Amino acid sequence: MTITMNHGAGGRIMHEFIHASILAHLGNDLLLRMDDAAVLEPSGPCKIAMTTDSYVVHPLFFPGGDIGKLAICGTVNDLSTSGAIPRWLTLSFILEEGFPLESLDRIIASIGATAREAGVLIVTGDTKVVEKGKGDGIFINTAGVGFIPEGVNLSTHNARPGDSVLINGPMGNHEAALFTVREQLPFTTTIESDAAPLNHLVQKLLGLSSGIRSVKDPTRGGVASALWEICDHSSVTITVQEDALPVDPQVRGVCELVGFDPMYMANEGKIIVVCDSDHKEVLLAAMGPGASCIGTVCEGAPSLTMATSIGGIRRLSMMENIQLPRIC
Amino acid sequence: MTITMNHGAGGRIMHEFIHASILAHLGNDLLLRMDDAAVLEPSGPCKIAMTTDSYVVHPLFFPGGDIGKLAICGTVNDLSTSGAIPRWLTLSFILEEGFPLESLDRIIASIGATAREAGVLIVTGDTKVVEKGKGDGIFINTAGVGFIPEGVNLSTHNARPGDSVLINGPMGNHEAALFTVREQLPFTTTIESDAAPLNHLVQKLLGLSSGIRSVKDPTRGGVASALWEICDHSSVTITVQEDALPVDPQVRGVCELVGFDPMYMANEGKIIVVCDSDHKEVLLAAMGPGASCIGTVCEGAPSLTMATSIGGIRRLSMMENIQLPRIC
Repeated sequence: MTITMNHGAGGRIMHEFIHASILAHLGNDLLLRMDDAAVLEPSGPCKIAMTTDSYVVHPLFFPGGDIGKLAICGTVNDLSTSGAIPRWLTLSFILEEGFPLESLDRIIASIGATAREAGVLIVTGDTKVVEKGKGDGIFINTAGVGFIPEGVNLSTHNARPGDSVLINGPMGNHEAALFTVREQLPFTTTIESDAAPLNHLVQKLLGLSSGIRSVKDPTRGGVASALWEICDHSSVTITVQEDALPVDPQVRGVCELVGFDPMYMANEGKIIVVCDSDHKEVLLAAMGPGASCIGTVCEGAPSLTMATSIGGIRRLSMMENIQLPRIC
Repeated sequence: MTITMNHGAGGRIMHEFIHASILAHLGNDLLLRMDDAAVLEPSGPCKIAMTTDSYVVHPLFFPGGDIGKLAICGTVNDLSTSGAIPRWLTLSFILEEGFPLESLDRIIASIGATAREAGVLIVTGDTKVVEKGKGDGIFINTAGVGFIPEGVNLSTHNARPGDSVLINGPMGNHEAALFTVREQLPFTTTIESDAAPLNHLVQKLLGLSSGIRSVKDPTRGGVASALWEICDHSSVTITVQEDALPVDPQVRGVCELVGFDPMYMANEGKIIVVCDSDHKEVLLAAMGPGASCIGTVCEGAPSLTMATSIGGIRRLSMMENIQLPRIC
């Protein structure tokens, strides 16, 4: 069974598809009302965080995840970086005619499992179908809404000189995992994507410390681009210590083979935390055994520099050219 | 200048593209913060409406509109049907490598103009690029959030026997306009899409009457599918009067030529209003000169019937087969 143009036409077949394939995995009281907009009641007055991402990852299934898991993690994590507790997600498919329903079902099941892990509800959605050759199997968009608890104020604009820069684990595993399934490598690896919802971790950290200035997930463009954005938005210099940058040996092997820089490789389960340096130890302990302090925030014009292993200083720019397309 | 893979890569070129092309047209205080999630403050405690749609319309520019205008109208209108005042929209592009930047700029300008007309802000967004041949120029997703004023309760679940069914103008113009630019017709027409944001109209109607049960925009699947959904959700029969159904002569001409049924043709600037019949006249007067009462809600099993011009009764089903793909 494959997707036909009728699956996106708004008639009987689309109606049956939504009931059989989507509501079966994702049904909840809000979604089941099936009005054009979901009506939601916040539990009290609070700030709202809102975000969106489209997902065009290739291939659709990869070690450690799939496009469905990514579509939930990415949007949950973007909400989490604002300090919000993610609550409601929208889900929109652009399907190519001929896409196997079996693959779609696997993806929707993965969306359901990841949404449950993150504790979010899919509250409304949309399905469009394009002719064969006008898309690439499936593209997904999710948008999300979350609530920011009172007193929480995280932003890439908040870093201050003296702050520490932490990360919760090794860099580049997501992009390296995609690379290994797309390209023929002269060796085998067991690299998996790090894709994971990070909202529970961020909330735990916020409960432990009032000294967190900024949380950022280093996805496209990697840790370097994420830090560069914090430098730019906060008008500070950040210096990272090359020796302190965590990279798994297998990921380093792939990078050396093909000339990728792990600092620019995409992650889907990592956060950078910029915090008051007095709070560094308690946060690192809570971030798990893979966590490390990778740098410090200094006064200066917006710039990102690296103190290299051999004692030099290297300036890092934004990513100039794409390493691997369609990683999310 | 055309879109390259680097426009979606998360590096310098994407950064410059966002500033030059997107912020130039759509910039506002919320969007300009450029955090991963927008942080929004509602003015008080209230219910939130949330919706999403992806747009794959073909061609991208058509008489009366373009994909950008549609992407704002569709999401604004889905929020409006819940009685919400639309406020914040997300905007996500999936671009095909090689897409002309000039076309993208026209589309973004149209998004900006329509958002201003509707009174909504684009607060966050995303851009992805896929390789040439893996997409079709541009796909857009918008998701939206609005606030439902206290006491407003609209839903397709609320229709009651005795209610009247109103529409604000003729059916099928959007789909007919797309048809005329896609197909070679033996005559020329001046048919334009009816695409328009309907939030101001819906709010005006809500201010005039407490007897509105349901508002629904008859997009994909047309008026028949929209009414069918109300019948299904409210467990009622709706009977429409064939003689009362408004169709422009040129649209009727296209339908007769190619065998389309205007009841199943998509609209992008129409609302169906189900209301207490005592409130019918005041609402029709406010809905404008093209408005008409097209039917009534009756007790009975969920079904949609038409009292035909020649005195018969015809049962209408959900749309069975697609008339024209990629209309929104």
